[in-house]
Amino acid sequence: MTSIDTLAVIGVGLIGGSFALALKAAGAVRRVIGVGRDPANVRRALARGAIDAAQPDAGAAAAEADFVLVATPVGAMPGIFAQIAPRLAPGAVVTDGGSTKADVCAAARVGLRERSAQFVPAHPVAGSDESGVAAAAADLYRGREVIITPLPENPPAALARVRAAWQACGARVTEMTPTAHDAVLAAVSHLPHLLSFALMREIAQRADARGILAHAGSGFREFTRLAASNAEMWRDICLANRAPLLGELRRYQDALARLGAMLEQGDAAALERTFAEARAARQVLGAAPRTPGADR
Amino acid sequence: MTSIDTLAVIGVGLIGGSFALALKAAGAVRRVIGVGRDPANVRRALARGAIDAAQPDAGAAAAEADFVLVATPVGAMPGIFAQIAPRLAPGAVVTDGGSTKADVCAAARVGLRERSAQFVPAHPVAGSDESGVAAAAADLYRGREVIITPLPENPPAALARVRAAWQACGARVTEMTPTAHDAVLAAVSHLPHLLSFALMREIAQRADARGILAHAGSGFREFTRLAASNAEMWRDICLANRAPLLGELRRYQDALARLGAMLEQGDAAALERTFAEARAARQVLGAAPRTPGADR
Repeated sequence: MTSIDTLAVIGVGLIGGSFALALKAAGAVRRVIGVGRDPANVRRALARGAIDAAQPDAGAAAAEADFVLVATPVGAMPGIFAQIAPRLAPGAVVTDGGSTKADVCAAARVGLRERSAQFVPAHPVAGSDESGVAAAAADLYRGREVIITPLPENPPAALARVRAAWQACGARVTEMTPTAHDAVLAAVSHLPHLLSFALMREIAQRADARGILAHAGSGFREFTRLAASNAEMWRDICLANRAPLLGELRRYQDALARLGAMLEQGDAAALERTFAEARAARQVLGAAPRTPGADR
Repeated sequence: MTSIDTLAVIGVGLIGGSFALALKAAGAVRRVIGVGRDPANVRRALARGAIDAAQPDAGAAAAEADFVLVATPVGAMPGIFAQIAPRLAPGAVVTDGGSTKADVCAAARVGLRERSAQFVPAHPVAGSDESGVAAAAADLYRGREVIITPLPENPPAALARVRAAWQACGARVTEMTPTAHDAVLAAVSHLPHLLSFALMREIAQRADARGILAHAGSGFREFTRLAASNAEMWRDICLANRAPLLGELRRYQDALARLGAMLEQGDAAALERTFAEARAARQVLGAAPRTPGADR
């Protein structure tokens, strides 16, 4: 069992709030200090018992902590790393909740400098359509994957502490390089989001959009649910992981062009083969959960 | 309240079986004759009480009926129409359950000839991942849309009887031309299926597919659920509705090309605007049902 004395959660939203609630439910932390920009959200975090104290300054919160979670948008992390680096205790460890990893690792090297060995990057592959601490839940990570992308300079003890904390939240922890992480997530998460946004936008901007969407059934709603995701967050993810995502997009465009040619030529056999191969692979994958979260 | 004396269901699968069960539950039919190719499935239909008698010959079944539902795959309908045309009673009406309408209307004109006025084409926008009468349910059509695409020669009385029968199943009946139907369905159903098949197949055929798919979260599972649909049925739908579907595919390919250019140029503002427009439209559309069916 992991044991954290003082946890600093920088960014008290869905990801940070759920991490604090899960560790508290597991009895794995004594005290949580929360850092947030939105006063109303911080008050809610206090009221829900996700945090025990609020501290506006990230550096000051980190100075008191033996475990730090950086759960801000990825774009804000370089600034956070620079703020906490001079205040971090030598024995403290830091992890994060960002959806991309190569850019976060690069930002940590620049911002944390010689303290980067204390930072073990992580991506909890879980989320929700909603955001903010109001949507946080102690079981958000239960059974979900958390991908850790260690830095070469991480000592085994730091790695073990971060791993244990995510496991205490109920997560299934896996390990990859930052580059491998970003390549895999481009395929299974970032591209599907892009495709879903594209379809929804393409139909929505038509003059007869309302007439068309009046006939959208459950299949269309499922296919486009990812397009209900936060626009600013997905702008940042797409740009942070631009090169792998562009690679996936090119492959997909080639696949669509091949399908278009089969359709144009009326090649029934090739269409059926393509669909059957997709179906067989999808059946191996298993059902979507009944109450799906919006993985990031 | 509609009142059918003898209903002939040609094709006792999910669509035909559910129609019979729904009308029986509503007390709107006295007797159902079922026509099916698969003896085991026909036995199941009898055992479930979906049909009261089995009849291997479609013409003979139609001869006894005042209401006929053709619920076979669309590819088999031309043959069925030719079989039932000479046996159809003058007062009988016929409807169908096909997912495309222009091709079914054309087949009806050829097969039913001077009886085509008795045929009122319909598309129940409902379904399931499963097929066969075992998956049939009296509430399959409850709250779902059934799109009727009348022929110019349909007398009002025939139209009213077919409309009333689908309404007795609990469906919300709308009306369109066959061409408008096929255009709308290409956008909200056929294209999303094609896109889902394409993504699943593109990843599945890679050497490292298993390693990638091990990290697929709930978002990917939702996005690709349509790719679990029946390959043969979707081959036929895509080919039957080829021209409108190719038009939708081209528009989507253009939209993807624009998104790719924004990504390449790092145009954060344009990406965010595109995603935000998609999100706003998706939020108006509302949630996917908890237990989604695979609309066809």
